[in-house]
Amino acid sequence: MATYDLATQEFLKVLTSVLGPVKSSALALHEPNIGEHEHQLVAQCLSSGWVSSVGAFITQFENQLSKITGAAHVVATVNGTTALHLGLYAVGVKPGNEVIVPTLSFVATANSVAHCGAIPHFADSSSETLGMDPIALRKHLASTTTKRGGDLINTKTGNRIGAIVPMHAFGHPMQIDELDLVAKEFGLPIVEDAAESLGSYFGKKHTGTFGRCGVLSFNGNKTITTGGGGAIFTDDEVLATKIRHLATTAKIAHEWEFIHDATAWNYRMPNLNAALGCAQLDRLDEFLKNKRNLAKKYQTALVDAQFLKFVSEPTGTTSNYWLNTFQLVQPDLQTRNELLAAARTQGYLCRPAWNLLHKLPMYQNSPRAELPVAQMLENSLINVPSSANLGS
Amino acid sequence: MATYDLATQEFLKVLTSVLGPVKSSALALHEPNIGEHEHQLVAQCLSSGWVSSVGAFITQFENQLSKITGAAHVVATVNGTTALHLGLYAVGVKPGNEVIVPTLSFVATANSVAHCGAIPHFADSSSETLGMDPIALRKHLASTTTKRGGDLINTKTGNRIGAIVPMHAFGHPMQIDELDLVAKEFGLPIVEDAAESLGSYFGKKHTGTFGRCGVLSFNGNKTITTGGGGAIFTDDEVLATKIRHLATTAKIAHEWEFIHDATAWNYRMPNLNAALGCAQLDRLDEFLKNKRNLAKKYQTALVDAQFLKFVSEPTGTTSNYWLNTFQLVQPDLQTRNELLAAARTQGYLCRPAWNLLHKLPMYQNSPRAELPVAQMLENSLINVPSSANLGS
Repeated sequence: MATYDLATQEFLKVLTSVLGPVKSSALALHEPNIGEHEHQLVAQCLSSGWVSSVGAFITQFENQLSKITGAAHVVATVNGTTALHLGLYAVGVKPGNEVIVPTLSFVATANSVAHCGAIPHFADSSSETLGMDPIALRKHLASTTTKRGGDLINTKTGNRIGAIVPMHAFGHPMQIDELDLVAKEFGLPIVEDAAESLGSYFGKKHTGTFGRCGVLSFNGNKTITTGGGGAIFTDDEVLATKIRHLATTAKIAHEWEFIHDATAWNYRMPNLNAALGCAQLDRLDEFLKNKRNLAKKYQTALVDAQFLKFVSEPTGTTSNYWLNTFQLVQPDLQTRNELLAAARTQGYLCRPAWNLLHKLPMYQNSPRAELPVAQMLENSLINVPSSANLGS
Repeated sequence: MATYDLATQEFLKVLTSVLGPVKSSALALHEPNIGEHEHQLVAQCLSSGWVSSVGAFITQFENQLSKITGAAHVVATVNGTTALHLGLYAVGVKPGNEVIVPTLSFVATANSVAHCGAIPHFADSSSETLGMDPIALRKHLASTTTKRGGDLINTKTGNRIGAIVPMHAFGHPMQIDELDLVAKEFGLPIVEDAAESLGSYFGKKHTGTFGRCGVLSFNGNKTITTGGGGAIFTDDEVLATKIRHLATTAKIAHEWEFIHDATAWNYRMPNLNAALGCAQLDRLDEFLKNKRNLAKKYQTALVDAQFLKFVSEPTGTTSNYWLNTFQLVQPDLQTRNELLAAARTQGYLCRPAWNLLHKLPMYQNSPRAELPVAQMLENSLINVPSSANLGS
């Protein structure tokens, strides 16, 4: 029996023991959990007539997020991609700059850089956290960059490096304290991609609050959803004011004049979506508890496994376990694909980590560090069904 | 008595005769009309769990729009600005190109050009339609551009001109047939900004269907709303496929791989917003009828007016009368502002046309034609309360 047949057997056994057999339709990777409370707040929003870019639920949603994350200022946006774009723009990323991003991430992390007219510069991952490896990054920057007039310059391309975007993969906090040291050493601002990590903490501090600003996503597959939505948060009042202004066509307040003082965007979350978000945030503790229960079940089921191991939250952090993640003990793309296909035939809609961004056609020529760990992770990670209700 | 005192008296008399006195809170310029049907469809969407970027209401909304506009393909987006951006990108506008836009428009028309890395090039308006003047544009292009290797080049700046974006101001169709001739003469694609003109027709053909593609907005102040939302429509299947692909992170369909083949965006309308939109579209005829009634009342009330005239739909067109518009017979900025201020003290929230875009700080150095008519219109136009319920 080939290795991957044994691995497949093990994988299916674990899935069935935790999730039970799939009866009718397939079991999705992550589904929204929408109940009576969501119906009530959304109906209240519709009845008020305030469904668009201004409304009480937007303010309430931002205040709730501020309380949860501990960030002083929050600006809700139409989605996480636009939030990242605006965050990068606001910290001063200019066309032709390079921005350090992990190659192991969702494509929006690199696209938001491109939306600034800038170039993603890919960094390697840590096998402990699945996020950017700060130690490897320090070595890479030390050997490939130079300081010139206050700017950090890529000596090979001649481009200014404008920012670092760490990402907390699948909800697991990356080593943000060490990255913060690296960023300070090289004089780079951090824009923290916490799209997947609402409810995840590094020490006692919420992910996304370590950088100049941080970003959340509330897409339908996230821990809470607003349909589509995102948010930028920061403790810097000046930056927050700038971001809010740029997200609302840079319009100057006036009784009737239409004066806009900068090229800007229409990136604000509508009140209708914020109403759904307020209700979802009221239930965040319930979701996080259930997701933690589910993670525990997966972890337990994998204790004696031979081919697979469970990816636990890094030491000193609290993960939201957004997407529970298994790892092949022997990384191998063919085995990974066999497992994914086998699970699918049984109705479990599992997925791999993302295809590494530096291999996608539009980013193949982008600058990059050596990326051996990310390559190993691409060949070995599998996400399994993780909806909150599965852990209740 | 100064002229503007008499004009103010006339203005307030007309507003009171059509709208009645404002009793408690101020009367807004345009408010959404949300009823039981909207509550039902949105609740149905929440119950389904499909609130995000995929769902039956998105498809239904696009199909309804296709039927109303007669366009073969419709792609719903997060708002009108993103729709315009994507439309311009898809027809080939490149960084450094210039795009012809009316200076009398909402700032999004110019911003979407800037979002392509391109430069707005401002054109004058017609006093008949309030939209771009095709005859003036022809003269301007003939005297300031040259053909070079298939491209139209601004001889002064050396930049390629990439597209024309006409806009149907306040719902009144501009002279799109004549503009189409100019566009063909100079080899430019039209991206039609129909953000304000859902339900407006040039002849028998819906606005937005004359260009390579057209764009709608469903912001809270529009004829129908989805909270925030927009749409791109076109008869060109290849273009539609490209736009849909670029609006959804350019992801290639695959059971589990994350392969994206272009730098792209997250611009799709969520199903939650589309559910609201489906219900609103079901009531479009009712809204249009009421808005037409209201326009008739304003028109009648202004028949014998001395200082003000009503802006009617241009001959041969059907306007949705999105925002009813009065015009000072003697254009004068001070009088206009006196009228706006006086109306506000009585609780009528009127507004002027937009500040001309070429005068905003970020577009002051952009190329432009002579703009005398737009300047006259800026000094003379006033929009008055126009919610559909006011005409019922």
